[in-house]
Amino acid sequence: MNTKIHQLKTNTKFKLEDRRNLAKRIFDDLRAMSVDGPGVSRESYGPGETAAMAYCAELAQKEGLIVTYDQAANLVIELPGKNNDAPCIICGSHLDSVPQGGNFDGSAGVIGGLISLIRMKREGVVPPRKICVMALRGEESAWFGLCYLGSSALFGELNGDDLERPHRTTRTALSTFMKEAGADVRLISQSEKLLNPKSVAAYIELHIEQGPVMVARKLPVGVVTGLRGNIRHNEVICRGEAGHAGAVPRWLRHDTVLATADLLSRLDTHWAALQERGLDLVLTVGILTTNQNDHAMSRIPGECQFCLEIRSQSIDTLEAFYQLIQSEAKNVSRERGVTFDFDKRSMSSPAKMDNRWVEHLLKICDKKGLPAEALPSGAGHDAGVFANAGIPSAMIFVRNENGSHNPLEAMALNDFMDALDVLDTALLNPVL
Amino acid sequence: MNTKIHQLKTNTKFKLEDRRNLAKRIFDDLRAMSVDGPGVSRESYGPGETAAMAYCAELAQKEGLIVTYDQAANLVIELPGKNNDAPCIICGSHLDSVPQGGNFDGSAGVIGGLISLIRMKREGVVPPRKICVMALRGEESAWFGLCYLGSSALFGELNGDDLERPHRTTRTALSTFMKEAGADVRLISQSEKLLNPKSVAAYIELHIEQGPVMVARKLPVGVVTGLRGNIRHNEVICRGEAGHAGAVPRWLRHDTVLATADLLSRLDTHWAALQERGLDLVLTVGILTTNQNDHAMSRIPGECQFCLEIRSQSIDTLEAFYQLIQSEAKNVSRERGVTFDFDKRSMSSPAKMDNRWVEHLLKICDKKGLPAEALPSGAGHDAGVFANAGIPSAMIFVRNENGSHNPLEAMALNDFMDALDVLDTALLNPVL
Repeated sequence: MNTKIHQLKTNTKFKLEDRRNLAKRIFDDLRAMSVDGPGVSRESYGPGETAAMAYCAELAQKEGLIVTYDQAANLVIELPGKNNDAPCIICGSHLDSVPQGGNFDGSAGVIGGLISLIRMKREGVVPPRKICVMALRGEESAWFGLCYLGSSALFGELNGDDLERPHRTTRTALSTFMKEAGADVRLISQSEKLLNPKSVAAYIELHIEQGPVMVARKLPVGVVTGLRGNIRHNEVICRGEAGHAGAVPRWLRHDTVLATADLLSRLDTHWAALQERGLDLVLTVGILTTNQNDHAMSRIPGECQFCLEIRSQSIDTLEAFYQLIQSEAKNVSRERGVTFDFDKRSMSSPAKMDNRWVEHLLKICDKKGLPAEALPSGAGHDAGVFANAGIPSAMIFVRNENGSHNPLEAMALNDFMDALDVLDTALLNPVL
Repeated sequence: MNTKIHQLKTNTKFKLEDRRNLAKRIFDDLRAMSVDGPGVSRESYGPGETAAMAYCAELAQKEGLIVTYDQAANLVIELPGKNNDAPCIICGSHLDSVPQGGNFDGSAGVIGGLISLIRMKREGVVPPRKICVMALRGEESAWFGLCYLGSSALFGELNGDDLERPHRTTRTALSTFMKEAGADVRLISQSEKLLNPKSVAAYIELHIEQGPVMVARKLPVGVVTGLRGNIRHNEVICRGEAGHAGAVPRWLRHDTVLATADLLSRLDTHWAALQERGLDLVLTVGILTTNQNDHAMSRIPGECQFCLEIRSQSIDTLEAFYQLIQSEAKNVSRERGVTFDFDKRSMSSPAKMDNRWVEHLLKICDKKGLPAEALPSGAGHDAGVFANAGIPSAMIFVRNENGSHNPLEAMALNDFMDALDVLDTALLNPVL
């Protein structure tokens, strides 16, 4: 690990203000290209994403950077280093958005990396080894129901079935979009590895925070410790017995709303207790409804349905809490004469960011006088795919108001420039 | 109060088996007249109800009973007594049903009374005072959103606005149906009293139980102590804050599903405690749903909506529990940073059955060797309207499987005959 930190010059012709103006112009241009009602829409492997990539590619080429597309049709912008045979440093994120989403989720990382390389290029800095900025395709699951498409393709993690996933509105298969974007659909459908993890020394992703922690803690920049994994059930159905709301006494009721409320309250209480013990966990029931076909004011609800999601950085916490859910569901079932039928469970593994990188990035922030903290990412990112492929990975979070995946995303340009300053330093001073 | 109980002869030409067969024939005929898919439909103040009344009227006339219709178009079948100036005894119930309902809810009481009068007539019994069987119009709220129409009209409890209520499908006003049935719409809309409560010594209603208590307790016959009143909110909206299910930690969440689960669990716990103290209460949340416009698996639910109903025989218990609901809603709001917005509260008062009648009916059951218990009615009935008009009222419940308001209602004829035996004796031995 480097102990001396290389800094870019602070007084050059490409001043902070100019970099700031360039960032603003790029964000504004991207927004204008993809405005959709109140927000922006850049479809995964679709025209909006492709146009955003072409825009960045053109800008990079004008600056003398090398532009290529890999076999998954991800955009790669390269600045050669002193030793180009050594594993490279990748700075990546994505350019797609959810439908009517915000302008910064994903794009901040690509634009940040691009401005970083432009700065090095303009200042004549030759980094120790090759640095690539990657605009990864299809990070958002909103379009094809699968996320991290571009990064997963690189590591052979997609298969033929995945490529048959239909587009959310047109129902056209993902493979059709991939082909049109120039991806090698045959290799991807055969789960061929398109990128050798050994050829990458580190993957660094700058991204807006999608939660409110940094706003609440007044932190412009954050360093991600890990990405939560999750266990999900799309559908849990509580079945009891419908009945006349006036005529059935308590002891003969099998009320599914009160049973579900009981279960969720128990889980909530366990969650609070586990949090106090310092475990990382979130529990969300985003959808809950009595049976719309027959529910009524004066009818004891005989059926109640909900989805269930738990997330944690620790697979042990996930599995332990999942067992608790099953156990409490059995308790409530027995006590109240109802059943809880869980559909197929789905799981996504947590990913750990590289410890040395976390320390390194915190140290960089500290030297720059930036208040920063290590914090987990509740949402998943391409960084998780790189990390789980064995590549030392790290994430720099930028403060962002109003959450993400909505038109109100609000990243202050000053915060972005602070994070970019950290990225510049990190790319030139990789942990090796 | 009578101490000696007059009994009808047990060996007459109108034997138990014949009465049983007559009951079966009438129930079968009524069902055949109003079959609708899997159940029966007899609309309030509509053709099905009118036809059922005409059928009963014709049968009564053939037996030499006096048949009239009152100013609310209720059917009145009369057997004169020894003293016809004394306040009469009314045995009543209704002939309408909910859409695709069961055949016994309401009809059991009218048919029971009719067979009782036929028996007295055939056996030459002259009761101490006049006995009237009333088939009351429009007991079910399913057709015009208001219940107890025929009995409420009698006591001046309907007004012009009520009569403008539209039919559930055709949207034709209730007044149109009433007119067609022969009711005096002018008097009813002016809330004129059509029946002087002082002219009625007692109102007795035989009715199937709509809950499962008697089946569970193996009781063919029950005596009703009181009819529960209720407090209702059609819509309570819990408002919190939507957010990314992964990215927002527990301390920054305002999750409306967990808040609602918390509130309902608290109320459920209070309910259980109050039950243990012997208070009469039921709590039902028949409808519960997250906001359908934006709820999703990975979104913290920012809005959750439900209806709320509590019922009790005691207005004090209702008001006390209602205060508890408000107080717990405030507690949960404060603790979780959400709000609960309650829409306009509606209330229907409990009605007490006459204590002396309850004792009397239990004694009759006891003398007949019938296992019977006093129990509350969770559902409302015309008997509540008569009771709240100041008329001593009582109800005899008949065991019934599968609840009511559905095609699966199942009253065993043997149970009905047991209840009818109690009714016969009660009508001839009124509490005065």
